[in-house]
Amino acid sequence: WDNAAIANETCTLRFSECNTPYFGIWLDLEMILFKKQSEFQDVRIIETKQFGRQLILDMKTQSAEKDEYLYHESLTHPAMLIHPCPKRVFIGGAGELATARETLKYKSVERVVLCDLDKVVVDACIEFLPQMSRAAKADKRLEIIIADAKQTLEQSTETWDVVIMDIADPIEAGPGIACYFQSFYQQIYDKLSDNGVFVTQSGPGGFVGHQECATTIYNTVKSVFPHTYLYTQEVPSYGQDWAFTIGIKLPKDKDIPAMKDWTFVDKEISKRFNGDSTLIKNTFRHYDGQSHSGMFSLPKHIRNSLENETRVMTKDTPVFMF
Amino acid sequence: WDNAAIANETCTLRFSECNTPYFGIWLDLEMILFKKQSEFQDVRIIETKQFGRQLILDMKTQSAEKDEYLYHESLTHPAMLIHPCPKRVFIGGAGELATARETLKYKSVERVVLCDLDKVVVDACIEFLPQMSRAAKADKRLEIIIADAKQTLEQSTETWDVVIMDIADPIEAGPGIACYFQSFYQQIYDKLSDNGVFVTQSGPGGFVGHQECATTIYNTVKSVFPHTYLYTQEVPSYGQDWAFTIGIKLPKDKDIPAMKDWTFVDKEISKRFNGDSTLIKNTFRHYDGQSHSGMFSLPKHIRNSLENETRVMTKDTPVFMF
Amino acid sequence: WDNAAIANETCTLRFSECNTPYFGIWLDLEMILFKKQSEFQDVRIIETKQFGRQLILDMKTQSAEKDEYLYHESLTHPAMLIHPCPKRVFIGGAGELATARETLKYKSVERVVLCDLDKVVVDACIEFLPQMSRAAKADKRLEIIIADAKQTLEQSTETWDVVIMDIADPIEAGPGIACYFQSFYQQIYDKLSDNGVFVTQSGPGGFVGHQECATTIYNTVKSVFPHTYLYTQEVPSYGQDWAFTIGIKLPKDKDIPAMKDWTFVDKEISKRFNGDSTLIKNTFRHYDGQSHSGMFSLPKHIRNSLENETRVMTKDTPVFMF
Amino acid sequence: WDNAAIANETCTLRFSECNTPYFGIWLDLEMILFKKQSEFQDVRIIETKQFGRQLILDMKTQSAEKDEYLYHESLTHPAMLIHPCPKRVFIGGAGELATARETLKYKSVERVVLCDLDKVVVDACIEFLPQMSRAAKADKRLEIIIADAKQTLEQSTETWDVVIMDIADPIEAGPGIACYFQSFYQQIYDKLSDNGVFVTQSGPGGFVGHQECATTIYNTVKSVFPHTYLYTQEVPSYGQDWAFTIGIKLPKDKDIPAMKDWTFVDKEISKRFNGDSTLIKNTFRHYDGQSHSGMFSLPKHIRNSLENETRVMTKDTPVFMF
Repeated sequence: WDNAAIANETCTLRFSECNTPYFGIWLDLEMILFKKQSEFQDVRIIETKQFGRQLILDMKTQSAEKDEYLYHESLTHPAMLIHPCPKRVFIGGAGELATARETLKYKSVERVVLCDLDKVVVDACIEFLPQMSRAAKADKRLEIIIADAKQTLEQSTETWDVVIMDIADPIEAGPGIACYFQSFYQQIYDKLSDNGVFVTQSGPGGFVGHQECATTIYNTVKSVFPHTYLYTQEVPSYGQDWAFTIGIKLPKDKDIPAMKDWTFVDKEISKRFNGDSTLIKNTFRHYDGQSHSGMFSLPKHIRNSLENETRVMTKDTPVFMF
Repeated sequence: WDNAAIANETCTLRFSECNTPYFGIWLDLEMILFKKQSEFQDVRIIETKQFGRQLILDMKTQSAEKDEYLYHESLTHPAMLIHPCPKRVFIGGAGELATARETLKYKSVERVVLCDLDKVVVDACIEFLPQMSRAAKADKRLEIIIADAKQTLEQSTETWDVVIMDIADPIEAGPGIACYFQSFYQQIYDKLSDNGVFVTQSGPGGFVGHQECATTIYNTVKSVFPHTYLYTQEVPSYGQDWAFTIGIKLPKDKDIPAMKDWTFVDKEISKRFNGDSTLIKNTFRHYDGQSHSGMFSLPKHIRNSLENETRVMTKDTPVFMF
Repeated sequence: WDNAAIANETCTLRFSECNTPYFGIWLDLEMILFKKQSEFQDVRIIETKQFGRQLILDMKTQSAEKDEYLYHESLTHPAMLIHPCPKRVFIGGAGELATARETLKYKSVERVVLCDLDKVVVDACIEFLPQMSRAAKADKRLEIIIADAKQTLEQSTETWDVVIMDIADPIEAGPGIACYFQSFYQQIYDKLSDNGVFVTQSGPGGFVGHQECATTIYNTVKSVFPHTYLYTQEVPSYGQDWAFTIGIKLPKDKDIPAMKDWTFVDKEISKRFNGDSTLIKNTFRHYDGQSHSGMFSLPKHIRNSLENETRVMTKDTPVFMF
Repeated sequence: WDNAAIANETCTLRFSECNTPYFGIWLDLEMILFKKQSEFQDVRIIETKQFGRQLILDMKTQSAEKDEYLYHESLTHPAMLIHPCPKRVFIGGAGELATARETLKYKSVERVVLCDLDKVVVDACIEFLPQMSRAAKADKRLEIIIADAKQTLEQSTETWDVVIMDIADPIEAGPGIACYFQSFYQQIYDKLSDNGVFVTQSGPGGFVGHQECATTIYNTVKSVFPHTYLYTQEVPSYGQDWAFTIGIKLPKDKDIPAMKDWTFVDKEISKRFNGDSTLIKNTFRHYDGQSHSGMFSLPKHIRNSLENETRVMTKDTPVFMF
């Protein structure tokens, strides 16, 4: 027995998270930096050897230092680039401020309203996750509102070019379930300007989990928006690929060029950033035409599931993910 | 305390596998069906609640019942379809016989030689993994040789249309390390017919692990073959996306249509299977044009790593994955 | 990274068992030999590196090859030696047959009836745990009855010198809960001959778990029997010390010599086995005077808990352990 | 799937510790309060649901809030009560200050010197483990020296009534290995006053681990001291029973009354604390005559191991525990 080596490997501090009741990931834990039961959820910030600092809500990873950019760029940029010139952005959830950070990279953007329910989360992210929160926090175009995103959007009289929902997955006990209902998507549709784009994180998008809620969210958005797309991205700290749904408020007969030809994405990025390739490289660590192609080229099993999906999520027919 | 529920969740039989020393997956275990230390490795067949029966060599998952088709179709079909009419196929490793199963789906195929080092593995797969092994085992076009794949290929005087290497990852102690050397790739190149296609599984291909060996394998194949492509596929029982490298023995200035336009793949499948859509649906559970597009559309971080990769794997400069 | 060593330690097959919802043990798993859902419970026989083969019912360890003798000797011998000359023994539960094995070591014993609910358990132990089952199985003095121990005892017209209850812990869903009620203890008392001794396994007996059910079982036995003692023994495969309760059907004013002076135990053993020290050594791997002293010398925290215990277990006031 | 319950049980933060490479305990983790790599070791203070705050050195639990009193009373009081009137006490290691706390409970004690190598440990315990450290820290009879215990003792010209070694287990890489050598025990013997008592923690003392180092430590102390006793105590946060060895500097033919009759212990406690039963109850949460009897009544397997032990630990024949 080589004691040191064995102790090293056998005595562990670990965070284990589940994808299903039978399957999940484990991560060696370096530190727990923050822990508080807020009014809404158990909030922790931990540090793992693999992914650095991670925001954990009710024991589920929300964002990790090392790969959050994969998630936040994937959530934000397709919508921002499909809209021809986004000026006004509404974000629900997203207490890390990293979704706001991505939207604020666009010069055209004049106003971002971020509405998160839980002040404890926002404050903890500002203190412990500066990589995610600092840039947005310092940007005067951002207004942070601590309130229910659904109510805030409904009561606001503003119209929006892009609406991004970056809230917790639809679980039974969660406060955010109403943000996945058809009726709410209709309200978002109504609040969007012409050409407006809506995107929502849609839960697990991998082989194992894409039918938990992603296909239903897609089907529900599709029941409201003329153009709807599901796409997925590997985010390793989530233990599985992740899904996103985009809805576009354009007449049905209008083409969406980014969906026809992925080189459009590179051209559009270039146009928005004045062809400044250094700026583009620094702005987009993940997103470009080929990454876009990978995200929107769905494997056959997901396409089959989308075809077979009949559920539409309403108050009376909620779908809860695991 | 609801005792039954807690015991149910807290008392567990689990298989944990690592992607890195700090990060891996866990799977609830139903049964261990087989366990034997062979001359070459620790061989087990386990059953997990999530993925069914799994072949485990030296504690690493090789194939799992529920998602093996993602791996085996991804390994096999791009090469089989890029070759205009594969008749003779050489397979190294692949003791589950599922890679052979995929190649034997093509009517054009006249002879498949599968060469695996470990009779214990092949016999266990025939007994415990009939889904993977049965169809190939019953096919008279298949010859199984229990021997070192490298030596067998070198000593054979046959030429091959497609060569598939489906052996264990390059690890220090593994017997297969020489199957990843440039000199072996040169021999494969020499044994291929004109138009010949080579494909090798290339280890982890996700965000976390793609630099362990995949980029080096790609670079090494590229030093031998005129056309070389890396591609990746989600295989959830592996805990991370997986990588494959394809090398094509065609003059450099020849186009590879499947790499230009993924609708070519659907057309080619249709052609090979006489437009029989039911047969096609039953033959390809995963692979088609759009799945192909997702596999070959690499995310930016992998493209960056490929660009920066300078290692070529030779006897004197081996690269061992974790 | 030394890959072999890391894989060795980081890729694991493990059985984890809980003492409480927050605390338990883990054991590296070699094999699962048997798995069946019987009419009553989930039955498995596993093999761990530390403790060899283990019988697992509803995911809780019942007996392990390497340390079962600690449990079975502790359960059996104090009762057998306190009774001056046990001839007739009734055993409830104890499907491993190891409790029977211990009682059959006494020449005075003429008849042992073992009554276990679950034929699947008994058969699996006979097949896979010969160390525990073989000797008893071959002994003609043993009668095995597959039936409810409580009903069988109640309906029998025999009287018994020693009654041993070796059934699963009192959990809500368990079939054996009635075997822990005061009314059943009264029936046992009535079925015992004069000088009769009753002993029951009593669940966890360590610092953490002794108040789960052991103190209540003690208090309930004490409400029926004139002399009652709780004792504990380390059984490492259980993850915690284990408790036993003994009740003696002797007038209150009679002395129990084994409780006064532990050298009595050694003398009594010698007497029963005709001073044959080799036989004694082979018969008792664990039990002797000093081991007895350790088992009956309770630490202060258990004595305090016994003093403060007021619960008596009846049909209307069951106590369920975790 | 009841999501909340499953997430609750399946997503976990856990500390796992090994008893052997194949067997250990797991504890649900609430928080990591402190983490620092000191000059000598990895120092952490964690909080677990089961045992509260725990000092962890090189990933091994040293003391836990909920059960440290079992360890510290067992280490300290037998020695303190065997000595007729301890005035001067030397403690090696014991950075939690809880061993000092126990010795300072005796009015007779005039001076306690505690010598720990690692200031980081002592400071962390003072800050985060006040239950263990506060009382001793405030007591003017205690002198804390940050230095090597062995050197400090050797260089001191004082004589001691009681010497207590409370240092890390003898592992290969550990700084404390020399504190387990026969030559050091001889020096302790020489520095003890007449009637002097030496006690050392001796590593695992349970069924599984007592031969790792406890039997050798016992044998080594016995090669120096006229009277030597091994004893064990359940300390659940250690995952196994723990061992202690006591050596008494009294002529061989002198009786040690506490070893003959455990009621002596109760009488002696009463004498030392003037029969003040409230004071005694508050002073000794664990230790009294019957607890003493349980600790010194060794089970047969340990007695057999002691009998068969021939190793004596010297610089040339070190014994490393797992």
